[in-house]
Parts: sequence; structure tokens; C-alpha cells
Amino acid sequence: MPSDGRGGAAQARTAGGRAVIIHAPKDLRVEERAAAEPGPGQVRVRIRAGGICGSDLHYYQHGGFGAVRLREPMVLGHEIAGTVEAVGEGVSGLALGAGVAVNPSLPCGGCRFCLAGQPNHCLDMRFYGSAMRMPHVQGGFAEMLVCEAARAVPLPEGMDTTLAAFAEPLSVCLHAARQAGPLMGARVLVTGAGPIGTLALAVARHAGAREVVATDLLSAPLLVARRMGADRVVAVAEDPDALRGYAVDKGHFDVVFEASGSAAALKTAIEVARPGATIVQLGLGGDVTLPLSALVAKEIALRGTFRFQEEFPLAVELLARGAIDPMPMLTAQMPMADAVAAFELAGDRGRAMKVQLAF
Amino acid sequence: MPSDGRGGAAQARTAGGRAVIIHAPKDLRVEERAAAEPGPGQVRVRIRAGGICGSDLHYYQHGGFGAVRLREPMVLGHEIAGTVEAVGEGVSGLALGAGVAVNPSLPCGGCRFCLAGQPNHCLDMRFYGSAMRMPHVQGGFAEMLVCEAARAVPLPEGMDTTLAAFAEPLSVCLHAARQAGPLMGARVLVTGAGPIGTLALAVARHAGAREVVATDLLSAPLLVARRMGADRVVAVAEDPDALRGYAVDKGHFDVVFEASGSAAALKTAIEVARPGATIVQLGLGGDVTLPLSALVAKEIALRGTFRFQEEFPLAVELLARGAIDPMPMLTAQMPMADAVAAFELAGDRGRAMKVQLAF
Amino acid sequence: MPSDGRGGAAQARTAGGRAVIIHAPKDLRVEERAAAEPGPGQVRVRIRAGGICGSDLHYYQHGGFGAVRLREPMVLGHEIAGTVEAVGEGVSGLALGAGVAVNPSLPCGGCRFCLAGQPNHCLDMRFYGSAMRMPHVQGGFAEMLVCEAARAVPLPEGMDTTLAAFAEPLSVCLHAARQAGPLMGARVLVTGAGPIGTLALAVARHAGAREVVATDLLSAPLLVARRMGADRVVAVAEDPDALRGYAVDKGHFDVVFEASGSAAALKTAIEVARPGATIVQLGLGGDVTLPLSALVAKEIALRGTFRFQEEFPLAVELLARGAIDPMPMLTAQMPMADAVAAFELAGDRGRAMKVQLAF
Amino acid sequence: MPSDGRGGAAQARTAGGRAVIIHAPKDLRVEERAAAEPGPGQVRVRIRAGGICGSDLHYYQHGGFGAVRLREPMVLGHEIAGTVEAVGEGVSGLALGAGVAVNPSLPCGGCRFCLAGQPNHCLDMRFYGSAMRMPHVQGGFAEMLVCEAARAVPLPEGMDTTLAAFAEPLSVCLHAARQAGPLMGARVLVTGAGPIGTLALAVARHAGAREVVATDLLSAPLLVARRMGADRVVAVAEDPDALRGYAVDKGHFDVVFEASGSAAALKTAIEVARPGATIVQLGLGGDVTLPLSALVAKEIALRGTFRFQEEFPLAVELLARGAIDPMPMLTAQMPMADAVAAFELAGDRGRAMKVQLAF
Repeated sequence: MPSDGRGGAAQARTAGGRAVIIHAPKDLRVEERAAAEPGPGQVRVRIRAGGICGSDLHYYQHGGFGAVRLREPMVLGHEIAGTVEAVGEGVSGLALGAGVAVNPSLPCGGCRFCLAGQPNHCLDMRFYGSAMRMPHVQGGFAEMLVCEAARAVPLPEGMDTTLAAFAEPLSVCLHAARQAGPLMGARVLVTGAGPIGTLALAVARHAGAREVVATDLLSAPLLVARRMGADRVVAVAEDPDALRGYAVDKGHFDVVFEASGSAAALKTAIEVARPGATIVQLGLGGDVTLPLSALVAKEIALRGTFRFQEEFPLAVELLARGAIDPMPMLTAQMPMADAVAAFELAGDRGRAMKVQLAF
Repeated sequence: MPSDGRGGAAQARTAGGRAVIIHAPKDLRVEERAAAEPGPGQVRVRIRAGGICGSDLHYYQHGGFGAVRLREPMVLGHEIAGTVEAVGEGVSGLALGAGVAVNPSLPCGGCRFCLAGQPNHCLDMRFYGSAMRMPHVQGGFAEMLVCEAARAVPLPEGMDTTLAAFAEPLSVCLHAARQAGPLMGARVLVTGAGPIGTLALAVARHAGAREVVATDLLSAPLLVARRMGADRVVAVAEDPDALRGYAVDKGHFDVVFEASGSAAALKTAIEVARPGATIVQLGLGGDVTLPLSALVAKEIALRGTFRFQEEFPLAVELLARGAIDPMPMLTAQMPMADAVAAFELAGDRGRAMKVQLAF
Repeated sequence: MPSDGRGGAAQARTAGGRAVIIHAPKDLRVEERAAAEPGPGQVRVRIRAGGICGSDLHYYQHGGFGAVRLREPMVLGHEIAGTVEAVGEGVSGLALGAGVAVNPSLPCGGCRFCLAGQPNHCLDMRFYGSAMRMPHVQGGFAEMLVCEAARAVPLPEGMDTTLAAFAEPLSVCLHAARQAGPLMGARVLVTGAGPIGTLALAVARHAGAREVVATDLLSAPLLVARRMGADRVVAVAEDPDALRGYAVDKGHFDVVFEASGSAAALKTAIEVARPGATIVQLGLGGDVTLPLSALVAKEIALRGTFRFQEEFPLAVELLARGAIDPMPMLTAQMPMADAVAAFELAGDRGRAMKVQLAF
Repeated sequence: MPSDGRGGAAQARTAGGRAVIIHAPKDLRVEERAAAEPGPGQVRVRIRAGGICGSDLHYYQHGGFGAVRLREPMVLGHEIAGTVEAVGEGVSGLALGAGVAVNPSLPCGGCRFCLAGQPNHCLDMRFYGSAMRMPHVQGGFAEMLVCEAARAVPLPEGMDTTLAAFAEPLSVCLHAARQAGPLMGARVLVTGAGPIGTLALAVARHAGAREVVATDLLSAPLLVARRMGADRVVAVAEDPDALRGYAVDKGHFDVVFEASGSAAALKTAIEVARPGATIVQLGLGGDVTLPLSALVAKEIALRGTFRFQEEFPLAVELLARGAIDPMPMLTAQMPMADAVAAFELAGDRGRAMKVQLAF
């Protein structure tokens, strides 16, 4: 594995065992890696469960997204949990065998954004399974992972790693919710009921939303959205006018989580949001068409949200105590050896919500 | 003039004298109107000065904008000031001969938005010189205007009506500034140096902005922007790369006032705004292309701003005490009889910033 | 009953039947009132349940609080619910026999605070059972109440009036929660586990608080606090040092709801709140001693909260769907004829949390 | 000088020359110090001007304040500016002879508050001339100061060190202003017109306050407050009822900067602040009496403010370009040799506002 010029400390290293490596679009391989021991301040984690995320799918299907392109083989995966197998020098608080969720985000701690309380905008971020920098930051779909101890967040006694592998996408949604301001008593629309949209609606519910409506093109994910707490679900492909009533008298929703990245959803969001509402944009998309005058006339705030900051331990805690239960979202957990089949399933929105690999 | 079914009390009525009436695109006439006396709670104002606004120009050039189209003749104008000539029953605090700025905005005071402190989103708004409702709400480019006393905001002793006719666009910019959060110490970019962009930069300066940069396609308005307080001006048509340096390390500006309504300016704004920045969208436009992923990854807030709320008296006060001096913006003040020439001049951004009519 | 000079329309009028009337401290009488019919825009409500509030107790025990003193006999009560018995002219949407919670707050809708979205600060507020103005605004502890239809908030099918009588104190706590900013993920301390403190903790839990600790001098109310969702309760009289651990490293809590009005609780709150925390002050008190330097050095925000704004319908909704269940708080529901005994019980914090009257 | 266990790098070290050292209350001496050379990452500054602050006076008059007591001799001073005399290894961007303002605040950069964007609450803060920790952090009233290069903020060409020595108190006031929310258009009261209150009013003016009223017990400082931009000044000892009119209709001021630390001023502030107003508490005091019910009923936010964060370079910039001119505040600049006389003068509020030492 290529050195990153900082001694590799900030980068995931597979510690022997097999890993799921993307070489090129549709070229995903399970390969054996050389062993590694945890250095000072590091731990070796036996990964147990790993959720396939939309960005993993983009690498698999298209070799990247936007300007971020695969330029060398990369271990995928950043929604991971496992058990501690070995600890390096100077590591305390992590017992051997203890369950951990691995935080894929490692900001530098010293740049102007880190010091201003915006570590998700770190100028030297190391995020697992990301081709943003060269050499790429290797990911966590691997039997063995050597990582900085600070990434390994201990699980409460008895917490399952399957559950813990939801900590990362839940962190993203907890962070998104903070962009929305107080949600208690709010009427909330979620456009796009993929894993992120669906977790966002669960977070809105957890934060005391008064009403949660979810939309998607397809019906299948909406069944899950319903089980995750939506008061109402709308398959917009089947019933394009279903939201029209919410546009009356300048709109109904206080907050929209836009998780589709589609121009049509954004347009609808602006129509049904009340004046002064906030649309939290989660869905990545390319260039979309925006009805500027409507946004202006209703004083809508369209606000991006990106990754997360200090929310990761909170996510673990919420999952552990059942405050948010993501299990209705889990379509399947498949063995690592079937990674290609798992990726194919995960990419089919009509059949799958969240697919995990078991290592 | 057609009655509006509410007894006309909420509508501007020319009280004799001539008025500037748009009949169709490019068909602007100065016509004599029937006289009217102020009813209870009303005053008659002898209009002295009226600024031509972008929306006036849209009616003149295109017969409207977006879905708002001229369907009957309408007196234009909503940036107006004059002197009190007669007061109706029950009106106090307005001496005959006193100078007033006329607030063109009259929310209903009873709808859910009015009662929630959002009167600019009133469901039954009466805004002067607007074809949004039918019958249209007649405007204030008229020698005589009968209006509700609440619209007539007294001018401090000695304040000129030429100056006072800037109160309305200044109110718009004061309201926009409130969407931006605290501006003290902020680095501010203004894209589009028309009258609104230029007043927005003056407001940012007044509110303690640390740095103010203004851009426009043309050089001419930027000369005015400089005189209104910009630290730096950039004619982007001449020097398309001039802002590139601001994009380094994820961006420079804390706040952008986007006053052009152009997709290119919005794209640039997102590039040069720092993570977590606010872009206040003032410029109306149709559908524009928005680089969604960049907005997301930088957690930009794009926030519309529309008209104003309680800012009008503050605008009068700031103009009166010279805290903001708009006079560098005044290209010409032309007699009402030359309304067509005035509108032609106002529509030429290479020659004109703000053109006023004198009545 | 004295006219209020506005035709009595804005004031509660008992419509025949008996009412609970305070004449002087400890002089509480159940007396027959003259009948009244609902005028235009009014309804007559057959009151079923009414909760005794701290301010009712202050009138009963001391004849008032602070500068607010009883100057004429007054019907007490503002936590009330019942069924519609008759509707006046022009009232729609309220079926005979339908359950309603009565909103005791009636702002004028026209003063500067009403129009700025701050109706709880209305300059001409009519709040039931309040001696703030003269003549006093009569309250709702009465078999029959004629009130403005706007005060009568319909209950969902099947919702009990016992439950609905919690809508008012819950509204107070929902409003308090809004002063705190987002509660999702927050560590919350509640000092003073009376009815308001206990409902505040339930609201914090509903809004996604991460941790909720409640304190009181006594143990008895803390048993209820535990059942209402507190993670930990501390009887500070028994264990004065129990909170000391929260003061380490400049403090632990993100938000404190101070519901005791005691200087000792406020001092503790400042010690255990983290830098930048918000203390929402719910508890009324006289002059208290404030450790100013500690508040300054930790940049604490101590923020008062008063009554409520638009939260009343939300409170009804949350109670109806069980999102917040106040029933553990209900100590007893006693017949109106036993009003004196009910007030005596309600005043004994060692035995009672919330006591209701049944009419 | 005692070592601080971190090699002294984070601590001011006099580099030869004389320093102003407090040994005990009223025992202030000008003493010769041993020379020191700047180590790696350090610079040696020839101090030119140093302002005497309230905390310096507390050490001089009382040996400390609150729990912070002098336990060993300490160089006073943290409002200092000078010129670079020598630079250590690895220091760039600081030319010999260049003017610098010295930032007395040095947070650790690694604690939870530093990483959350709250460095002023750093758990391991090194603040010049402070007896909070043991050994004390030596201050900057010294001819020669060796300090970390990061503390030395370069002055724009031609900026005087007398002016630059105001950067520290101005930073405090800029930070205070941020606690107030947007000040543009706000009606502002400043209670206590000492150096901090007076600079706070200048900042409010700079940030676009609509109206600024300043109070003090004495008339003398109010003359300066007037010159610094107050619209009105009130000597409350002479005219105790002068503010009464501001209490009408629940209050007038949107923001109060309470800079006296007195209970009487705080009580008045609550009376004349409008509902929902913010009182920014700058003045340190011991335990004060707070009218809790009034704070609650008006939903006042009383918010402490402490030192500053990233505001220091902004302060230098504002002073350099004359956006805020503190010179009316400078009572005298006296030679270091007359330090005792300077401290005596600075302690007499009837004669002095800000006294500087020249080195």
C-alpha cells in the first residue's frame, strides 16, 4: 500500500486478511492483504459489519463522482464496526474484544476550519474509502483494520456491530438535522427515501417533529420509510399531484430534507415549504435547475450539509439505547466473499435499502 | 379607477393631477386623473420624487415578469416621497406641508404571516404599483396620491424628498442584510452592482463589514459602487479570473449578496464563499443552474430575501442622518412629462444607476 | 361581573352554574353565577377538568405575587378543558358536544408585540384568571364558560378532557424549550421538579435530549420526574454534593431549565453548565442573588421564558397522540365542591404534583 | 523566572530591560530582568506602549479579584504593542523593526473547547499577566518581551503602537458584540462608561446601531463616551429618573451592554430593555441581586461574554483604518518609570479613562 507521506498513521491499513478493493468501475475484488501491527496510538480492529453507502456504489458503478475519480485501487467502505484485536503503545480505554464503531472521519485538528469548530471542512481531512486525495485514503471493508485509536468509538456492553455499522450514516443525518434549527414541533418533508433520507426522517421524528412526510419516485423504499416513522409517504411517480395541497397559502413545511439530489424534488420542496422555511440539502447532484424567484419570494434558506462533526458518539449512543432503530432499513447482510452480489443488490433501489457486508 | 371590492381604501388613488400609467409594454402615458379627497384615516400626498425601480422597468419593457403580467392600465411607482396636502378624519401626527416617504407595502395585519411577524409574506398584501393581484394595486408615480396615513412616514425636518425616495430600496437592502446574520467583521461580496446591489454594499459597510468587494459585468455601475463604499470592484466581463484567488482553501467570503439573478454569478458566489457562508439572494431570475454538490460540500446557505418588514422607518432615519448617502447613485432626476425618456435612460445600465421622476 | 369596557367579549364569563372564586387569601368559595349566552363569535363550554397551577396557589395562599394583587373577587383557573354546549353567531368548526381545550391566552392582535410575532408580550393581553389588569380577567374554574371561539381548540376524537387540561402547562414548557435552541443531542438539567419542571423535562426528552437530570429539594416529586423520563434524579437537600461532578472542566450541561426560582438552584446551574450553555429561567422568584462573574466567565446565557405563543395547538396534539404522557403527574382529580381541599393538597409539594378539579 | 513545566515557551519572558512587577497590593516595582533570546518559533518584541486595564488595577489595588490572587511576583500588562527586535528559528512573516500588537491570549489548541471553536474557554489558557494559574503567566509591561510568534500580530505600515495597544480591549468588545446578535438597526444602551463600556459603544456604533445611550455614575467618563459616538449620555447619580421613559410599554432597548458589574445597573437594564432583548454582561462583579421575575416576564437574555476568540486581528485592522478611533479615551501616556503614578491615575475614574505606559 502506498505511503501517504505522513507515515501512514492517518490512513487505514488492512492488517492481513481480505479486503474489498475497487480497481475500476465494475471491477471489485476481494483480495488478501499483507498483515500489519498497530503502531503507537493505533488499534487493530476485526471488522464485523460494513454498510454499503451511496459513495461506495458510485465508485463501483462509475469509478467516482464529480471531480472525484478513482486513480489507484482502493479499499471501499466507511460504515464499519468490529471488535478490538490488538492495541498499540499508549492506547488506553479500549479493551481487547470490545466492540467499536469506527469513525471514518479524521480531521487534522490544526487547520483554520478545525480550530473554528468546523472539522468537517478540514483542509487535510482523512476520510476512509475516499479518492479525494492522492494517494487515496483506503477504506474499511476489510477483515482487519489498523486505525488511530481515536477513530474507534467503544460500543456499550452488548451492542451489536450490525447496529453499530449504522453509526456513520446516522451521524450524517444528525449533522443535517442541526442545519435545520430546532425540529421540535416542525412539519417536515423528506424528499428521497434512500438510506440517508430515511435516517433523516427518523432523526426528525426523534427530535420531536410534529409531522413527517416522505416522498420517493418508487414505492418500495417508502414502505421502509413508513416503518421508520413517516406519518405519510408519497410515491411521486405514481401520484405527481399528491403534494399540491401543501403548496396552498404559500406552503406548509417548516423544514425539508432534500435527499434525492434531483431538480424536480428541489422544485417541489420550494413550492410546498412555507415562507422562511429551511431546505437542508443532503442529496448530492450535479448541476440542477433552481427556480430562483420562488426561493427569493418565499425567503427560503437552501442549506447544504456535509458529513458530520462531533455527532458520531451520539449516533452510537442513540442506536445503542434504541432511540433510533435502523433495523427496518437493513435489506440484507451478505458475506464479504459475495461483495459483488451485495453491491449489485445495494444498487437496486427497488429491492434494497441498506445492504451490509459481514466479514 | 376600478374599485378593489374593499372600498378602495387600501389602494393608491390619484387625487387629481397627472400620473404615469403603463398600458402595455413600451406604452407608458402621462395622463390626467380624477380628483379624490382623503377619507377617514387617509392623507393626500403631493408627490415630489419617485425612483424608477427594476420592476417598473419590467412592466415598461416586458409588461411584467414571471407570472405577474399587466392585465389593465396601472400607475407605476413605489419609491416615492412628497408632502402632506390634506388629511382625512382621525389622522394625527401628520402636519400639512410635512415631508413624508410613502411606504408602498401594506400588509393586512390579520393573516397567519402578519401575526407571526412575517408581514412581507402577507396573504393579502397591497403593494403599490404591482400587478400581482387583480385589480392591480395602483402605484405612486402621480402628482397626487391618496393613501392610508400609516403609509406616510414623516421625514425629519429639512430632509429632502429626493433623498427620501431612496427609503424603499434601502428598506429592501436592510431586510436583506438581516438574512445574512451579523455583518460586523464579515468579508462581503456583492455580485451585481445595480441599485439594489449597490445599496446592499452600502448597508454592509454601515453594518461594519470588514471588506466589501463588488462585481458587475459592466464597469460603469462599479464606479458608483466604489463611491458607495466598495473596497474593490471587479468587472467580470473584462477580467473573468479576477475572483479566482478568493476560492483558495475553500473560499474567502462570509456573506454574499447576490443581486444579479444570473446563474454565472451564483456559481462564482458558491466558489468564493467559505464553508458555512450565507449567500443572500436578492436578484430575481427565472430558472438558474445551481451547482448542487458544491453547495452541499461547503454547507453554503442560499437564502432568499423579499421586500421588507419593519425596516422602512429605519431607512428614512439612516438617510436623514447621512449614515447612508445614496446620492452618488442618482443618475438624473427628470420631469414627469419626460417619463418615457426617464424609463429609457433607467433601462440602460451602461449609463444609468437610479433615475428619479420629479412631479 | 364587571364589564371590561370592551363589551366583555374578551373576558371569560361564567354562563350559569357554579364557579371557584377567590375573594381573599385563603377565602376560596364555590358560588353560583348568573347564566350567559354566547354572543357572536363566542361559544359556551361545559368545563370538565381544570388543573390547579402555581399562580392559582399564589392567589389562594398569598392573594397574589409580586406587584400582582387581588383587588376584587376572581374566578381562578386557566388549565381547562370541556365540551362545547352552545355556539354563537358566525362560529364554525366547533360541533356541539365536541371536546375542547380552552386557551387562556388572548392577545390583542394589534399592538407592536402582536405584530412582531411576540403575542405573549401583548400590551393588552387577556389571560384567564389573572389579576394583572383591573377589572381582573376572570378564569375558567367554572361549570359554564362563555369564551371567544378562537380560544376553544378542538380535541381529536376520543381525547379525554383530563388529558387536555394539561395543554396549557405543556404549552408553557414547549415555549420554554424554544428559548433553549435545538435540544436534540443536548445534555439537560432541570432544577425544580414541580409540574412545570417535570413537563419541561418531558419536553426535553421529546425533543431528543441526550441526557436529562432533574433535581429538587424533595424526593417525592422526583419519583414522578423519573416516570416522566429523567435519566437521573437528585434530591439536593439529601445529597448537596451530588452535582459536583458535573462542574469539572468548566461544566457538563448544554441546557438547564431552572424551574425553582431559587437562588441556590441558579447558582448550581451556572456551576454545572458548560461554557456557552443556556439556562432557561422558568421559575418565578423575587430578587435572587446571581454570581455574576461566573456567568460572565463561562459566557452563560440566562434567558427568561414567559407563557407561550402559538404552541397551544401543538400541546393538544402531543397529548392526544401520546408523544408526551402527563398522567404520572396527576395526583388527584377532585370534585369542584372540594375546591378548598384540592387547593390545600395542591399546595403540599411533598404529597402532590398536579391536582385537577372535576366540574 | 519560574519554569512552567512546558519549557516556558507559552509564557512571557522579559528579555532584559526593565519590567513593571506587582509584588503585593500597592507594591508595584520597576525592576531589571535578565536577558533572553527568542527560541524557535518565538520573537523578541521591544514593547512601546501598554494600556493599564481594570484587571491590572485589581492586582495593584487588591492583589487580585475573586478567587484569583497574587501568589508570586508578576509582570502586569496585556494591552501591549511594540516592534520586532529579533526572531527565532522558523519564524517567518515578521520583519525586524516591524510594528506588532501582542495578543495576550494563547489557547492550547487541543482541548475540547479549542476544538469546538471556543478557544476563550481553553482548559489550558496562557493569558498574559494573569494569576489564574501557578506559576502565574507573566505579562507584557516590560521593555523586552520574548513571545510566541503567533501572538505578534503585524501592524499595517505606519500604524502607531499607541493606537495598537487598544487592540486587546477592542477585541473584548468585538467579541461582546457578537453575543448580542446583529446590531444593525438596534437601539443600544451601555451601562458603565469605563474603557470597556466606552469601546463597546463605539463597536455598537460601528456595527450600525440605530441609537446608543450610555450611562455612568460619574459625568467625566460620559464626556468621553459622547466623543466616542454616544447619542445621549446620562449621569445616573445626578439624574436617577432619566431612564424611566425608556421603560414605557415594556421597554425600549434591543441590546444592553452592561459594563459596570453593578446590581443597580443590571436592574435598570432589565427595566428598560424590550421583551426579548439581550443584555450582554461585560462587567465583572461579585454576587449581585437579580430581579428574576422581571427577567422571566420579559424573556430577557442575560448573556456573559469573556475575553475574545479570533477578533484580535480584526481589532488591529479597525484601529488601523480608523473605523474605530479610541484616541479620545487616552487620558495620558506616562513613562514606565512613573508606573506607580500611572496606576494611581488610572484608578481614578473621575480623572482617567485609559492610561498607557510608554516603554
